[in-house]
Amino acid sequence: MNPSPRDLCHNLNVENGHLTFAGQDTVALAARFGTPLYLMDEDTIRRNCRQYTEGFARLFPAGSLVLYASKAASFTKLCRIIQTEGLGLDVVSMGEIYTACKAGFPMEKVYFHSNHKTQADIQFALEKGVGCLVADNEEELLCLQAEAAKRNRRQKVLLRITPGIDPHTYAAVATGQVDSKFGLPIETGQAEAFLALALQQPNLFVAGLHCHVGSQVFTEDVFERSAAVMLAFMADMREKLGFVCEELDLGGGYGTRYVHSDPEVNIPEKLSSLAAVITAECRRLRLPLPRVLLEPGRSIVADAGLTLYTVGSVKQIPGYRTYVSVDGGMTDNPRYALYGSRYTCYIANKMDEPRDMPCALVGRCCESGDVIQPQAALPASTGRGDLAAVCTTGAYNYSMASNYNRLPRPPVVLLQGGTARIAVRRETLEDIVALDV
Amino acid sequence: MNPSPRDLCHNLNVENGHLTFAGQDTVALAARFGTPLYLMDEDTIRRNCRQYTEGFARLFPAGSLVLYASKAASFTKLCRIIQTEGLGLDVVSMGEIYTACKAGFPMEKVYFHSNHKTQADIQFALEKGVGCLVADNEEELLCLQAEAAKRNRRQKVLLRITPGIDPHTYAAVATGQVDSKFGLPIETGQAEAFLALALQQPNLFVAGLHCHVGSQVFTEDVFERSAAVMLAFMADMREKLGFVCEELDLGGGYGTRYVHSDPEVNIPEKLSSLAAVITAECRRLRLPLPRVLLEPGRSIVADAGLTLYTVGSVKQIPGYRTYVSVDGGMTDNPRYALYGSRYTCYIANKMDEPRDMPCALVGRCCESGDVIQPQAALPASTGRGDLAAVCTTGAYNYSMASNYNRLPRPPVVLLQGGTARIAVRRETLEDIVALDV
Repeated sequence: MNPSPRDLCHNLNVENGHLTFAGQDTVALAARFGTPLYLMDEDTIRRNCRQYTEGFARLFPAGSLVLYASKAASFTKLCRIIQTEGLGLDVVSMGEIYTACKAGFPMEKVYFHSNHKTQADIQFALEKGVGCLVADNEEELLCLQAEAAKRNRRQKVLLRITPGIDPHTYAAVATGQVDSKFGLPIETGQAEAFLALALQQPNLFVAGLHCHVGSQVFTEDVFERSAAVMLAFMADMREKLGFVCEELDLGGGYGTRYVHSDPEVNIPEKLSSLAAVITAECRRLRLPLPRVLLEPGRSIVADAGLTLYTVGSVKQIPGYRTYVSVDGGMTDNPRYALYGSRYTCYIANKMDEPRDMPCALVGRCCESGDVIQPQAALPASTGRGDLAAVCTTGAYNYSMASNYNRLPRPPVVLLQGGTARIAVRRETLEDIVALDV
Repeated sequence: MNPSPRDLCHNLNVENGHLTFAGQDTVALAARFGTPLYLMDEDTIRRNCRQYTEGFARLFPAGSLVLYASKAASFTKLCRIIQTEGLGLDVVSMGEIYTACKAGFPMEKVYFHSNHKTQADIQFALEKGVGCLVADNEEELLCLQAEAAKRNRRQKVLLRITPGIDPHTYAAVATGQVDSKFGLPIETGQAEAFLALALQQPNLFVAGLHCHVGSQVFTEDVFERSAAVMLAFMADMREKLGFVCEELDLGGGYGTRYVHSDPEVNIPEKLSSLAAVITAECRRLRLPLPRVLLEPGRSIVADAGLTLYTVGSVKQIPGYRTYVSVDGGMTDNPRYALYGSRYTCYIANKMDEPRDMPCALVGRCCESGDVIQPQAALPASTGRGDLAAVCTTGAYNYSMASNYNRLPRPPVVLLQGGTARIAVRRETLEDIVALDV
């Protein structure tokens, strides 16, 4: 009935009635750095990276690469961690490229996605030596050809294709179906025309194809199904256009557990199963094995993150609901407001008490929709000054944070081996008005 | 079938095939300032302010005050415009107080709301001389008493009460019902207990009551109904506690038109009708007429705003949909992603062409939910490099903007009498990494 934090993630525990994260007392961390506070556990980031990289080394051809999807969370120190783990980087904007540059990330391992790259974006990527651009559409492809020609360079590209697969996740993160703003679909013949156009461009080297079927993938076969669709398309294109696809980027990553009832994902097993499908399909279709790429973001950083808040009021409205307010909210974590996302919440300084009070954990923004979790369970003694912890906030929290209500964004503190260091500093009031002229 | 922009708002027009805003050519403004770009029309802000202030001067007792809800949009130059129009300010955080200070706003006309004020917030507000704090709950009230006592001051407060009215607007902006994170309800007896507690505090002066029934109010009687409920409560509290309520803050403002089919709101008429209800109820209940406060935010700035974007790809997926992508999205306008909000969209450089192509106007973020408007109508010739305009973006756009995908936030340019000046400068790539340690 009250499953332990450790059952949710290995980096959570309880000591002396306090929640620990990455082996450190969260109450002490809140006292030291203030709240609201994002914590990130470096060892868990590295462990998550290795789940992918070790599987890749074992299962896929040389040159296969795990790309960290930096839209999940991007800051300089995180890019450095990703780099030392040997992953590549999936970036979606100049800002993410710039962050990678600042971190000294090897640019040849950077892949530039996005459904909308401006001429300035493309110029910037070429100047910075981004290894591969993932072309989303024909306008962009022609712009890229022109820019590569100006620089007298042959630029490696992948083409984004929509395989026509609905991953049964929430609509906002489903990207692989035919009716999508991303890429061009196989079903309508547009992917073939796109590839034919790309192959005619003298300054582009079409290394392969990219697809993305959506994030937070739990079901058994989504990557396997998209691999099968893509390999069939590759075989077809080899026949029709003589195109040999060297790289197959399947996008996305496996699901992360946010609440105890979410399924556990065994990434090494999933990768083995995916490799078996790819190998068998290539054999059947007489295709050479392509280099394989995946783009996990959430499953690298989500459970490496935890957010701490200070409780303000506890408002019991008899016959209705109890509201527990905290000093953050949709500004640092808009995921419930956007997607109705689920989270596991604790009172970090009262871990020995039963969580027997059903309540809504709400934020401090002047907006009813500013809810962190509408159905939390916290100790009945929860009150002003207590420390609330929201687990699994490492992905799409800091990266989506806003200054709504002119609230400063919290700092990100990296935990490693008993130490804590600031990776992103807290915004100040002066920062809030810094852009005002 | 293609109603004119001017039918949506008086500050929109068409000249030489271009959309004009506040009398200026949007194509020229985009060329000068780049895209994405927020434009704000100063004359419309002032005109909207005067709709309220002129009605207030005519209808309500001296000392009644229109408060601009700065969460809708807050930056220094805007605070100065609000100040010269004689409005007060509704703030919800240290950041908004700090912005008001920087603008030289008279602090006695500042009202500090929020369902969650930390001790630091309260200290900051008292130091800066904020005129009135709107206490949301008992914990906060007691903290405020302690801080006022330390400073040997008697601080003016209002108490936030939930009248138990559902304004039939979208759940995320509905705030007046009993089941709410804001204030304390009349129905459960908690509002009375709250008031009794407040009246016992020696360093607090309870000037009156506040309620807020939600934003984007179109229906005839929501303010009138909440006024009636609040006046009945005031009469009850005068009898039970001897409390004379000098100020009645009804929160919120009237609705804004986003699309041509939204109803027109005649604010002077609405205010007259509200004043008649308040006067009649006070007479019936033998209450002295309280000073009246309203807190319009959206209806001051929404139609004073317009966003310009450059079109990237136009992707026609036969049998499905056409996607028109632009160089911004949920990062500068998250309202469709959050609330499914409707907007009116144009191609600003092709205003003479029929808008005969149904399409989805989508953003550049790597997320399927990044949609600005799923069912827009644009000219069939729309293509890369065209200028898209999204109307009525002055409220809850810049204020809710994020750096998701590490995209820099657009600048805000104020238009007035043929001139254009930057009020908030564009973020740079260096700004994006400025907090990284």
